[in-house]
Amino acid sequence: MSESSQLAMEKCAANYTPLTPLSFIKRTAEVYPDNTSVIYGERRYTWAETYRRSSQLASALCRVGVEPGDRVAIMAANTPEMYEAHFGVPMAQAILTPINYRLDAAAIGFILKHSEARVLLTDREFSTVIRQALATLEHPPRVFDIDDPMVDGGERLGECDYEALLQKGDPEYQWPMIEEEWKAITLNYTSGTTGDPKGVLYHHRGAYLNSMSNALDWDMSMHPVYLWTLPMFHCNGWCFPWTLAARAGVNICLRKVDAGAIYRAISEQGADHFCGAPIVLNMVINASDQEKRDFNHLCKVMTAAAPPPPAVLKQMQEQGFQVTHVYGLTETYGPAVVCAWHSEWDQLAIEQQAEMKSRQGVVYSAQEALMVADSETLQPVPWDGETIGEVFCRGNITMMGYYRNPQATESAFAGGWFHTGDLGVRHADGYIQLKDRSKDIIITGGENVSSIEIEGVLYNHPSVRHVAVVARPDEKWGETPCAFVELAPDATVDEAALIEYCREHLAHFKCPTSVVFDEIPKTSTGKVQKFQLRKRFTEPSQAIPQRTEEEAAGYDGEHE
Amino acid sequence: MSESSQLAMEKCAANYTPLTPLSFIKRTAEVYPDNTSVIYGERRYTWAETYRRSSQLASALCRVGVEPGDRVAIMAANTPEMYEAHFGVPMAQAILTPINYRLDAAAIGFILKHSEARVLLTDREFSTVIRQALATLEHPPRVFDIDDPMVDGGERLGECDYEALLQKGDPEYQWPMIEEEWKAITLNYTSGTTGDPKGVLYHHRGAYLNSMSNALDWDMSMHPVYLWTLPMFHCNGWCFPWTLAARAGVNICLRKVDAGAIYRAISEQGADHFCGAPIVLNMVINASDQEKRDFNHLCKVMTAAAPPPPAVLKQMQEQGFQVTHVYGLTETYGPAVVCAWHSEWDQLAIEQQAEMKSRQGVVYSAQEALMVADSETLQPVPWDGETIGEVFCRGNITMMGYYRNPQATESAFAGGWFHTGDLGVRHADGYIQLKDRSKDIIITGGENVSSIEIEGVLYNHPSVRHVAVVARPDEKWGETPCAFVELAPDATVDEAALIEYCREHLAHFKCPTSVVFDEIPKTSTGKVQKFQLRKRFTEPSQAIPQRTEEEAAGYDGEHE
Repeated sequence: MSESSQLAMEKCAANYTPLTPLSFIKRTAEVYPDNTSVIYGERRYTWAETYRRSSQLASALCRVGVEPGDRVAIMAANTPEMYEAHFGVPMAQAILTPINYRLDAAAIGFILKHSEARVLLTDREFSTVIRQALATLEHPPRVFDIDDPMVDGGERLGECDYEALLQKGDPEYQWPMIEEEWKAITLNYTSGTTGDPKGVLYHHRGAYLNSMSNALDWDMSMHPVYLWTLPMFHCNGWCFPWTLAARAGVNICLRKVDAGAIYRAISEQGADHFCGAPIVLNMVINASDQEKRDFNHLCKVMTAAAPPPPAVLKQMQEQGFQVTHVYGLTETYGPAVVCAWHSEWDQLAIEQQAEMKSRQGVVYSAQEALMVADSETLQPVPWDGETIGEVFCRGNITMMGYYRNPQATESAFAGGWFHTGDLGVRHADGYIQLKDRSKDIIITGGENVSSIEIEGVLYNHPSVRHVAVVARPDEKWGETPCAFVELAPDATVDEAALIEYCREHLAHFKCPTSVVFDEIPKTSTGKVQKFQLRKRFTEPSQAIPQRTEEEAAGYDGEHE
Repeated sequence: MSESSQLAMEKCAANYTPLTPLSFIKRTAEVYPDNTSVIYGERRYTWAETYRRSSQLASALCRVGVEPGDRVAIMAANTPEMYEAHFGVPMAQAILTPINYRLDAAAIGFILKHSEARVLLTDREFSTVIRQALATLEHPPRVFDIDDPMVDGGERLGECDYEALLQKGDPEYQWPMIEEEWKAITLNYTSGTTGDPKGVLYHHRGAYLNSMSNALDWDMSMHPVYLWTLPMFHCNGWCFPWTLAARAGVNICLRKVDAGAIYRAISEQGADHFCGAPIVLNMVINASDQEKRDFNHLCKVMTAAAPPPPAVLKQMQEQGFQVTHVYGLTETYGPAVVCAWHSEWDQLAIEQQAEMKSRQGVVYSAQEALMVADSETLQPVPWDGETIGEVFCRGNITMMGYYRNPQATESAFAGGWFHTGDLGVRHADGYIQLKDRSKDIIITGGENVSSIEIEGVLYNHPSVRHVAVVARPDEKWGETPCAFVELAPDATVDEAALIEYCREHLAHFKCPTSVVFDEIPKTSTGKVQKFQLRKRFTEPSQAIPQRTEEEAAGYDGEHE
């Protein structure tokens, strides 16, 4: 008896709604109107207010000519305006296009031109570079300034400021619910490692599902107090603006992240969740006694961008933070892989716990599948923790595609899987562990050596504060590992001692043949810029080279 | 600038997967293979085993001729087999059709015939009634017995038992992932209050979303220990079989629910979540000292089916249970409305807290909208807590429709909203409160009186253990309220005293004019059968009448 026609029931308004994170804020504003939504310095909003301001922004954008599908760019720090834009722009049926505020004028100009942004909301702090970028455009967008009194300097560039723009809109605006969940909600530019930045399109369905998955996979209870240490321009803050709306939480916004501010937010405002690259974890660990504050609640930290070295994880744990390690890329809405914890691991020594936790892990709840496989044949590698392959994933929290770049989209999705470009292994328990970006792997004497593995060893050395290992051209071996090291204050270890330390903990062919003590270049999100380090071997002057597109985009690859 | 064609990106295998709760068990079996999934008496399974057995069931069903879209009926208590069927049947692309084990042969025969079930899995405990039901069918399904050694008596009816059926299947079966989320996963029969039972179709998308919403709205952390007090035949256990898979929790199965078993599971097995109608709450409150056990953890309870009287909620709270009140119907996958708690309400006196909690509340996270409105015009009532209207909802956790009943489907969805048939008010804060089923409202002297309101008052009287108020025909007033009361042990209060008590707490026209002390008829899920009580006024013999279809279906309306 095969499927009968009676089962082919039609969708209707009563039983089908497109998935969109806009439903979260609508519900929360209705259920918890008086709960605090956003805190920024002396400013404080409730969910009713944030909803009202977002609706008003939507209305205002429509009135200044934004049409469905238009791009609305934003250059902003983690402020209430940036938060509201994550709702107001989609409420206007438009596509939010956040810009990394560390970019230079050329890269910003490229993004504004490529996205054909109709409107730009821009924070006064960044007016110098925005002015330059706008000057390069034939058809500049309409510009409105976020005129934050907490910013000194800069100038207003637009027709009016954000508050005046809001005044053009109707705070009671009944924005139309989206009609199709497979429709772009945001456009996030990242840089490939070669060529122009790519525009990654997120849709409403994926944003909804990843927001829910953030809460489930992080075990985030209702009413979290979330501290914004991760820039919202970065993969839409890993979808957390929407997760916070779903959980009716508090968003503590910070313009500038430093250790003192983090501890104050935890201790004085009860912050119990934050996200950040290892640089943020380092900041917390290395805070001065003056910056540190006591706190009595559990503070959960989600980290990504590079595998946190065991030593860092261990210190965080000892200081009362519970670290969850995730992995993802701009193309996966931020986190799409999580090192899901097993309670039996609590019994392990803290070093072993940190080792378990340094693995990237398993697929996020809202993602469908993950594999480590041969880049060409897509044949999965054995689950042996040894065989290196490329990491692939598929599912609902994978981008729609690259904006206006069908070729790149096609090659990213070849074979029905998203090709991350990251190299890793799969352990016997199915957890994946990254070994490197394709381009960061060191090939010495025909052997693949993971720079991350060497870094993990060096991070355990008490004198090492920060380390990055890259391939150094070598006549005999092709390449050999070279370690760039930032030392801890007052440390005095030398090159030979560190190499010897590596030889005690690694196969000899994996050990660095040279160590350079110097500051390590990082992006705004704390990612090490290994391409900068590699250049030192080809540009003997070691002068800081001209910004490349790669650097300009502020990423070393699309790693989260 | 309107939407450009570059934004119309196609779905592909890399970035789109249909939503289905089958993804949950697949992921959990991979991530937590050794965690306990199901405990039933001495039987214990891990997630790897439950996944394997479910896959094997799917394979076996295919091998005995089940085709995509076929209905597989199940008549079972809350056992591992019932749990596995919630995964194995959809893995076979078939539609699970659970049957209420309190039904009589005629109703079961109707369901088997109407659903055209291809296969019936049936527990030996229920063989007598199933044998009778099968005898009425011209084309009976293939029958397999759940042959539980914990059951005395009964007989095997089928070709082989469940374990032998499993043996026909391949435990390594790679079941095909569903291709369309808008496709039926289960068929749940409920009774209208008139006419034949209706078959409510759930789809994969709704089952996925309600499962997630259960976890989010109940703030259920990872690895819950869930006690099955709610029958799984009932709206697929409110989708909790799938929620437990998503949260990698433990399912404690019980064939027979009693107070002792509940306390033992909490105290000895660490159960920290269960669901149930007020009858289960009463069981817990009224447990004997011998049945009660101490426990040190928080035990969360989700209740529905009828507004829990403030007195009951208060006692639960005092005994260390945290009660969440939800509301829904078979048509909404179980819970679709939740009395979302406000932390500021913790400051209220416990009586007031109970009063807040007795309201049904606001829309579930996965549901889109809720309203109280005029039944005909769909004009929303004012949010005044006074004006009674019909409760409507819409969104993704509303059924696909009634199986083979386009007319009923159309009228249930008229105007783009699902008509619940329940009457309620909307309070100023947007929370809804049920006042009655349309048919239970008492119209006295032209005034609408809520039977629930009167019951709430009587439940606060220390001598009242259980109460149901119905309309009694009255020559002068049309109808007047009549209260049926079960007294607490050793209580001696009389009719006049209870009426007087009501007059102290209610407008006089709302007070019962008569009180009957007698046992109150309830369904298997603890719902009061008010139609039975009303019959006493028309059938003066007060004999137990013949089963009606209404009673046969075991429901008084479709309330959850």
